[in-house]
Amino acid sequence: MSDQTRLAALRARMQETGTDLLALGPGPNMLWLAGFFPHPDERPCLLLVTADGAGFLMPALNAADSRARADLPMWTWADADGPGEALAQALADLRATTARKVAVDETMRADFALLLLDALPQAGHALAQDTLGALRLRKDAGEQDELRMNAAIDDAAVRAVLAAIRPGMTERELAAIAIQVFKDNGASALFTIVGAGANGSYPHHSTGETVIRDGDAVVIDLGARKGNFSSDITRMAVVGTPPADYDRVHATVEAAVQAALAAARPGVRACEVDRAARSVIEAAGYGEYFVHRTGHGMGLEGHEPPWITDTSQTILETGMVFSIEPGIYLPGRFGVRLEEVVILQEDGPEVLSGLPRDAHRA
Amino acid sequence: MSDQTRLAALRARMQETGTDLLALGPGPNMLWLAGFFPHPDERPCLLLVTADGAGFLMPALNAADSRARADLPMWTWADADGPGEALAQALADLRATTARKVAVDETMRADFALLLLDALPQAGHALAQDTLGALRLRKDAGEQDELRMNAAIDDAAVRAVLAAIRPGMTERELAAIAIQVFKDNGASALFTIVGAGANGSYPHHSTGETVIRDGDAVVIDLGARKGNFSSDITRMAVVGTPPADYDRVHATVEAAVQAALAAARPGVRACEVDRAARSVIEAAGYGEYFVHRTGHGMGLEGHEPPWITDTSQTILETGMVFSIEPGIYLPGRFGVRLEEVVILQEDGPEVLSGLPRDAHRA
Repeated sequence: MSDQTRLAALRARMQETGTDLLALGPGPNMLWLAGFFPHPDERPCLLLVTADGAGFLMPALNAADSRARADLPMWTWADADGPGEALAQALADLRATTARKVAVDETMRADFALLLLDALPQAGHALAQDTLGALRLRKDAGEQDELRMNAAIDDAAVRAVLAAIRPGMTERELAAIAIQVFKDNGASALFTIVGAGANGSYPHHSTGETVIRDGDAVVIDLGARKGNFSSDITRMAVVGTPPADYDRVHATVEAAVQAALAAARPGVRACEVDRAARSVIEAAGYGEYFVHRTGHGMGLEGHEPPWITDTSQTILETGMVFSIEPGIYLPGRFGVRLEEVVILQEDGPEVLSGLPRDAHRA
Repeated sequence: MSDQTRLAALRARMQETGTDLLALGPGPNMLWLAGFFPHPDERPCLLLVTADGAGFLMPALNAADSRARADLPMWTWADADGPGEALAQALADLRATTARKVAVDETMRADFALLLLDALPQAGHALAQDTLGALRLRKDAGEQDELRMNAAIDDAAVRAVLAAIRPGMTERELAAIAIQVFKDNGASALFTIVGAGANGSYPHHSTGETVIRDGDAVVIDLGARKGNFSSDITRMAVVGTPPADYDRVHATVEAAVQAALAAARPGVRACEVDRAARSVIEAAGYGEYFVHRTGHGMGLEGHEPPWITDTSQTILETGMVFSIEPGIYLPGRFGVRLEEVVILQEDGPEVLSGLPRDAHRA
């Protein structure tokens, strides 16, 4: 979609939801709508959209750069003055001072949102997810290609880590191998979780100096960004003899992935995909150790709707992109997570990774 | 200061400002108070502080990891349930449901702040800068050492870029040299602005494929992070014959830096430092081309109070850390910015960089 097509679709959605004013900060939503965002810092910067107007509240030092990239009005403000007067003028010129419902970008800084809402005390507020967010759910062909390219790079990073893993290496050394692969492919690492042994039982373990030992199960969860989209994958390695129960836990998570992949079809509710994975894990007796949702959407943000949770009523549609990543976390012992990112096609999920999900044996 | 000393100082400050409840997101303020923060994502996570209680609203999947790092109550919530009930329970247990004034972390996501404020409709809101932010202004001896270490790494990066710069190289190639120096020293690049020729007239130019040509003035603004603190420096290079007026503009900016360094003393208002630099540039006839404040504080955040602006009434004190970075930006031609980061000591500013501010001639 072009920027103009997107703006028209957004205004239709604003009308449907009774949203008088939408405010976006420098970040993924502004990127989606305007094709760029200025350098983000503590200076309030907002893209304001109404039914018939749009423009930027813009820090003066970013105005020249932004004018070269966007053909929209700008209300600029200088560091010495602060943004208050420029914002008041913008709201007046956009005839937004009487807005009854204002939707704010959920990802922007709290002080940006409060600056705006304090200037419109009569307005109720909502989040951008109901308007702009809804339009980002389905990815077009070009966006899908960018996601496939990112997934191929992520596969290369996992292959390199698995080829290198040996007892005596640290988590951080393994993460560095992935970071180098990302760099060699023109991508920037977003996260490189390597969780050895008991560390793997923390879903968001902070990769550190823990040394890989014989008998460790190792969670490897890697993601990077090239262009405007990113990647995300989790695979397992086992060094030497696996810990007791490892094979059964891994097989359970694998079955949960397969159940979720089988459930994910256009027209199905997101909670049914979560339920498919969760039921497998509960039936095996590990339900209390699956402490998170089955997956999250992925696009301009690494985590975005649709959320694949036990309660999400979102109807899945073609072009939606999300992860399927059930896990079992045994405190003090080990964790197992297997993660695929899929694009939902007419006939079911297209899995972006080409890597097997078996535990790599080192 | 220990975490307990910090908590006591914070509560004293909350009492002075009539703040009943303070809410921090995963970020620099939580790091300052609790010594860590959980993996930040879209799941609401708050550290709540009252006059006699404190604890975390915590996504379930980060609870085990966080319990290993913090000895505070946690109200956890699962992905399928969302944070609403856990937050209500936390506010009840902390006896905060009748809070009249709630201060929120300005850097946290807008949806985190609105979740909390919507749960406390009777409360007015403020920002954390008046309570916790005020306590972060003066850096202790250990923090100052971390800043000096970061500055030394940044100097090495600037030296490497200046040694390499030649006509025919791109901005991005020069930035890559800096990124490698950061990596070799165990630091992560935060920003690597290389603005050649007319690009330098955008203060926040996005480093790109522009080729360095003979006759270019080049702005080099580099910063990185090692540990919890970061660095920031700007120097100039000139390739071949400088553009017309370059030497006069550079000399004007240099005089502005010196004026600001001379003005910065304990007991002086921040606006007087800005005024000292700005007056020099205005007197030379370039006032309209100095489009930003003279500087910003630096600590756990790369930009934080004190703000060195034309209107800031903050009284400078020993231990405060801030940049002095006047600039002149001539649209379509070139820009000149020279930036020092200083620690304010009894007898004046300690300049962290050991590099001269002359234009490097290549």
